[in-house]
Order: sequence, then C-alpha cells, then structure tokens
Amino acid sequence: MTLRPDIASRLRRDPAGLVCAVVQQHDTGEVLMVGWMDDEALDRTLRQGRVTFWSRSRQEYWRKGDTSGHVQYVRSVALDCDGDALLVTVDQVGAACHTGRRSCFMAGGDLGAVVGAALHPGVHEEPGSPGEGRSGADQG
Amino acid sequence: MTLRPDIASRLRRDPAGLVCAVVQQHDTGEVLMVGWMDDEALDRTLRQGRVTFWSRSRQEYWRKGDTSGHVQYVRSVALDCDGDALLVTVDQVGAACHTGRRSCFMAGGDLGAVVGAALHPGVHEEPGSPGEGRSGADQG
Repeated sequence: MTLRPDIASRLRRDPAGLVCAVVQQHDTGEVLMVGWMDDEALDRTLRQGRVTFWSRSRQEYWRKGDTSGHVQYVRSVALDCDGDALLVTVDQVGAACHTGRRSCFMAGGDLGAVVGAALHPGVHEEPGSPGEGRSGADQG
Repeated sequence: MTLRPDIASRLRRDPAGLVCAVVQQHDTGEVLMVGWMDDEALDRTLRQGRVTFWSRSRQEYWRKGDTSGHVQYVRSVALDCDGDALLVTVDQVGAACHTGRRSCFMAGGDLGAVVGAALHPGVHEEPGSPGEGRSGADQG
C-alpha cells in the first residue's frame, strides 16, 4: 500500500524525506517521545493501529513495541498546518523510552529554564520581562 | 550569551544545526505546535522566559508573539534522551497557529487513522490486530 495521495501531497519533508512525529499519551496528555516518519511509516501507522517510525540511526522501519513489548496503539494522527509535523495520540504500553522511563523527556531531563509565565493565573507580564522563577520552583 | 556547554554538548543537531521543539500548553497538556531551535534560539528560550525559534522558511530568529501578540511564556524546557528533541511547556497567549487556531494540529487536521487502542481500558489487543474504529469515531 502507499500513502494516500491527498495526504502525501501535504507533507513537507526534510532533506531525508522525513517529518517529525510527536507522540502523546491520549488520556493524560503526556508527551512521550518524538520519532520520525517517511511516507511508508506514516502509511503503516494510519492503517495498522500501531505506530511505525523510520529509525534514522538504524536506517530501518521500527514498529514500536515489536522488540520491547512497549507497544503504541494509535488513537489519532493529525498533521500540522504546514505539513512538517505529526501529532500521534496513542495508548502507550509501559515505557516509551528505551531507558525504561515513561517518556524520553523524563529521561533527558529539565534544562532549568527561566520561567516567564505570570505567577498568578491570568496575569501576564510584559514581553521581555521574564519571571523570577526557574522551572521546578514553586510557582505559587 | 552562548548556550551552556553542558547542554550544547548533549544536542544532536540535524544537518541544518537544528533540533525540533515540541510546544505544549503547561496546564491542559495540549500540543500546540512544533518549531525548530538552533543553539542560540535555545539559549534565548532558556534565559528570556519567552520562546524563540529559528524560522527555517525565513532563515531568521523568531520570538513567538513579537509580531502577533501570541506570546509563549516558558514554564519548562526538557531535552529528550538522545538530544534531538525539546519539550517546551508554555503559557500560550491566544492562538499558537498563524491560521488563528489554538494549535497547528487543529489547523492541519485529523488524518483518519485506524484506531488500534483497546476499546476497554486496560484490555489491549494483540500486536498486529488493529481495532475497528477510526479516530473521531465513538470509542465507547
């Protein structure tokens, strides 16, 4: 099978023929990982109810969970406005990350950004005036 | 200022020197958009409390909201396990998408994937056995 032409025509692929795919747990909203798909990986993902990526490091298709058991069951796939990113909502079995952590961002960790959000809901600071906290700090 | 060396050394950049940045609304969990950052854009994002991207189409830095008013106030920035993706949680003012939609994935729209998730919570189907629904269908 090949990817539906109406979808293929909307993809804006990188020089390697890939678009990035953000994988989100459908009910909690947690962003689990980012993978990469070419047309064939996207086609399989749309048809099989299971997420398939293109592995840039191994240069092969990789259906998530076939080896690890950490299957991603597809709930929905959306394309963004300019065709270069996909949002795949899934039901993740076990850990999404090869390190055993639930998400790859838990595994990589927080970078200690200055928090720019208003300290009180609904009250925004002026642009260019970052807040005083750091991520992880009590935001009262 | 330049990006902290301990962070820079962990980035795995694409051939254009970029990593992808997934932007998520901090409280609702909604994935708003995907942008791209080089070291400088990430450094500004970590320090300013505002999200700055590298615009691949315009080939310039782009601090979200400076033109549109649709500011993204940073709440946290995390790097993934292999250093090629960032998760930026924000407090988004107004629409994240240039189309005026709250998210770029709402704007691009659903691709009608076959739903592979178990129909009842906690009950997973066997690998290779996709479910019967399509995304958007009643999954009751």
